[in-house]
Amino acid sequence: MAARTALPDLAQQVITALKAANATIVTAESCTGGLIGATLTGVPGSSAAFFGGFITYDNEAKSRMIRVPFRMIEDYGAVSNQVARAMADGARNTAGTDYAVAATGIAGPDGGSERKPIGLVYLAVSSNEGTSVIEKRFGDIGREAIRKASVEASLELVLDVLSRRQEP
Amino acid sequence: MAARTALPDLAQQVITALKAANATIVTAESCTGGLIGATLTGVPGSSAAFFGGFITYDNEAKSRMIRVPFRMIEDYGAVSNQVARAMADGARNTAGTDYAVAATGIAGPDGGSERKPIGLVYLAVSSNEGTSVIEKRFGDIGREAIRKASVEASLELVLDVLSRRQEP
Repeated sequence: MAARTALPDLAQQVITALKAANATIVTAESCTGGLIGATLTGVPGSSAAFFGGFITYDNEAKSRMIRVPFRMIEDYGAVSNQVARAMADGARNTAGTDYAVAATGIAGPDGGSERKPIGLVYLAVSSNEGTSVIEKRFGDIGREAIRKASVEASLELVLDVLSRRQEP
Repeated sequence: MAARTALPDLAQQVITALKAANATIVTAESCTGGLIGATLTGVPGSSAAFFGGFITYDNEAKSRMIRVPFRMIEDYGAVSNQVARAMADGARNTAGTDYAVAATGIAGPDGGSERKPIGLVYLAVSSNEGTSVIEKRFGDIGREAIRKASVEASLELVLDVLSRRQEP
């Protein structure tokens, strides 16, 4: 495996990039349960860019806190491209921030299936330029490892979207 | 310092106690930025008791997401007994859970003052039997240590409240 940037360094890069863009971010977390927010707020001074977050662990929380349509969860499942996108868009609209990052996945040890195995995670970043969603299949590497890999991939997606943004 | 229960063990105890009480919980986090939620959801099967959470980092997030009166924040400061209580009550009412746990404090390295030094943290647990608030002064032991100590103290407060609850 290639050397990876440690999570605190990656979080620092995200906060620095957001500050440079004079932009704010909100999180919407399911499988990571608050770990993206905790990682970003580990950076001193993160309050300049980090608005807050929604930990939408229960499906009811997804629909009530950030208006993910319950029908969508029924139709596609909570761990789906569609719900990840709706979480990011819903969190951004609810909070009124420039960006939102969302994560939904199956961290295990239960809940996996053949079609949706443990380690399947969808990550999304929403901005006023559109919404990017990626699918990751980390495999059954353990609950904590899947959660940390999800945080890492979500922060990399934020950096990627920020680097491609149109200058105003 | 006395030997401390590791955070994952403490989280397991909280989830077990909540399940035994057939109760749900929501978090409202400021200085911990999602770390209470991340710690609780580190427990496999936590979804039976953990509904979700609000990371209300910005003061605007405190008022918009969980209806902490803005005037209260102005009058007492975001790091206060009053705001911790309002965060816990507001999160519980907004989410419709049995319990809510809230944390607001000064993790540093900036933001401390003589009256409100770095390491000052208020923790609150709200239930239908009332709201408990405690003040902790961890001192300037470092941002991550203050955040982890806050998570630990908040989970201990939940256990304490659960152990004292009236049997229905």
